Amino acid sequence: MADTTAARRIAPGALEAFVARALEKVAIPPADARSIAELMVRADVQGSEGHGVFRLPQYIRRIRGGAVNVKPTIRVVREAAGMALVDGDNGMGHLVMRFATGRAIEKARTAGVAWVGVKWSNHAGPASLYATMPLEHDMIGLYLAVGNANHLPAWGGLDMLLSTNPIAVAVPGGDEPAIVLDMATTVAAYGKVKTRAQRGEMMPEGWMMDRGGRPLTDPKRSNEGFLLPIGGYKGYGLALVFGLLAGTLNGAAMGRDVVDFNADDATPTNTGHCIVAIDVAAFQPVAEFKRAVDALARDLRNSRRLPGFDAVRLPGDGAHAAREDRLRNGIPLPPALAAALEQLAKELDVEPPA
Amino acid sequence: MADTTAARRIAPGALEAFVARALEKVAIPPADARSIAELMVRADVQGSEGHGVFRLPQYIRRIRGGAVNVKPTIRVVREAAGMALVDGDNGMGHLVMRFATGRAIEKARTAGVAWVGVKWSNHAGPASLYATMPLEHDMIGLYLAVGNANHLPAWGGLDMLLSTNPIAVAVPGGDEPAIVLDMATTVAAYGKVKTRAQRGEMMPEGWMMDRGGRPLTDPKRSNEGFLLPIGGYKGYGLALVFGLLAGTLNGAAMGRDVVDFNADDATPTNTGHCIVAIDVAAFQPVAEFKRAVDALARDLRNSRRLPGFDAVRLPGDGAHAAREDRLRNGIPLPPALAAALEQLAKELDVEPPA
Repeated sequence: MADTTAARRIAPGALEAFVARALEKVAIPPADARSIAELMVRADVQGSEGHGVFRLPQYIRRIRGGAVNVKPTIRVVREAAGMALVDGDNGMGHLVMRFATGRAIEKARTAGVAWVGVKWSNHAGPASLYATMPLEHDMIGLYLAVGNANHLPAWGGLDMLLSTNPIAVAVPGGDEPAIVLDMATTVAAYGKVKTRAQRGEMMPEGWMMDRGGRPLTDPKRSNEGFLLPIGGYKGYGLALVFGLLAGTLNGAAMGRDVVDFNADDATPTNTGHCIVAIDVAAFQPVAEFKRAVDALARDLRNSRRLPGFDAVRLPGDGAHAAREDRLRNGIPLPPALAAALEQLAKELDVEPPA
Repeated sequence: MADTTAARRIAPGALEAFVARALEKVAIPPADARSIAELMVRADVQGSEGHGVFRLPQYIRRIRGGAVNVKPTIRVVREAAGMALVDGDNGMGHLVMRFATGRAIEKARTAGVAWVGVKWSNHAGPASLYATMPLEHDMIGLYLAVGNANHLPAWGGLDMLLSTNPIAVAVPGGDEPAIVLDMATTVAAYGKVKTRAQRGEMMPEGWMMDRGGRPLTDPKRSNEGFLLPIGGYKGYGLALVFGLLAGTLNGAAMGRDVVDFNADDATPTNTGHCIVAIDVAAFQPVAEFKRAVDALARDLRNSRRLPGFDAVRLPGDGAHAAREDRLRNGIPLPPALAAALEQLAKELDVEPPA
């Protein structure tokens, strides 16, 4: 988590109300605006700063540029017992993915496992927002997506044909919190690069490389290089196959067809995602499964430690801690973000965040 | 691919016949022995040396030790429209996974996508053997497994509670060869460590670390340290969630319950896998999909290159080249492997490989 000590705190409800006001002002229907705002603020609450309210000015810019359909007809266009394909009609990604995840959960109740592919969507925030939705139904969630800008060449290549295509997997625990992995297939997600740029901070070596193969550490120069995949050619392979599954298979953008939504305010992205809901009860009694997950989690936590580590953490621990803190103490608004939101409020002529 | 210039070559058919003879000699029924032999040799043909015939002496040792059921009743124990759970009855992993993959393909014909979990299996060779089986049905294959020895602690931990839990994804192309990713979640698979040890070669830094956090490069000392995950905590997260999906969800071994099949010839491993078959036709016309995969593959291959690279490769290119070479020229048998197979033939009193 970033150092947020200097930032003022804002109550999640107040931030949500502001986001909804802003979205309504650009012609998104009130119920949809509230639904999107709730998910965007949920991202900040869980510490996914690079994918939460931070994105609002960009979203608004693209809506005003005509790139996003504010009144989409989101629907299932193909369906079989274990799958569905959703056409998002170029609506806001949060709406499209909430719909698709709902379908996956519903179908998994009878099919045991349901795979829902999505096309004609948009950026939908952090991957774990959707992977975690099946949890309350005692289901496992698995989410893949094609990122909305190519920041990555093939391994050994220079043409940026791949995005940071993330994976999220959420597994329900019993007494232990859910295990929630949410990761880009690059060493750093591009959202983190943007956050650093906004804060005026440098990046560590290993996040990005320039076209000559030299380390790139200034996030303001990020357009002069590319992100590095985890494990070299392995991360490249993961970015590629996740993109094939979330993009190409669904008839969504992949490779050269990916639109850089940071640089373009007018062109629909045809963003692809997929969400898989896996009903634990189809495989074994839920209580037994949760006991096994808890036992494994405790074994990992109680492990002897390498020199230099003060704890062994599980995927999702950071988000869990952020949620506990922010629901109680509010969401930190770093000065640059606060200023950007004030500015946006002025432009849209809506009340700024309270 | 390893340097195999010094190795003699053997025809795949001859090697297959030898493997089948050896397996029959330890009471595996002839049809099963041929089926296993065919898959084991297929691994060598595609260049997965660490997971092919190289493993035969170990398999035989464990069968003779009573760890593996030579006459299993492999069956579906739970089923819904989009999933099945297979109990392998502790049979050879190749038999169990061939069965499970067949069920996944069959179910995906009507369900569009079918997820088959597996428990009470055994080591089944390289992940891509099963991920590629759906290809000829114009389906995508996705395979996950729990490895058969814990070589990996949690990130920041010392207790080895995780295996190299691999993923394989195979996507059919049109004119271009299928894209086949097959990777461990560690920088190196343990099979590669074993191959290096057998050949008397050292490992590069970055594959393993000792318990003090120092690089470990002698594969003969591999039991004094652990494998390193790709991307640090990200690879740890992938190994964990793949293990939850392939192991815990199916009631198979995970974490402390994983049996080290390198060190133990008597205890069943209860190996877990999962295989997902995704019918492309459920999502879009197959020909359209293949055109899109081909176009993407060509864009990647034709990319401008980083200094120092003579080609941009796709996942599966290495296996594809190995297959072309080995089907024509035979499978290289390094001297150490040839000697091990000769020795095994003597012990079992069967004809050695021709």
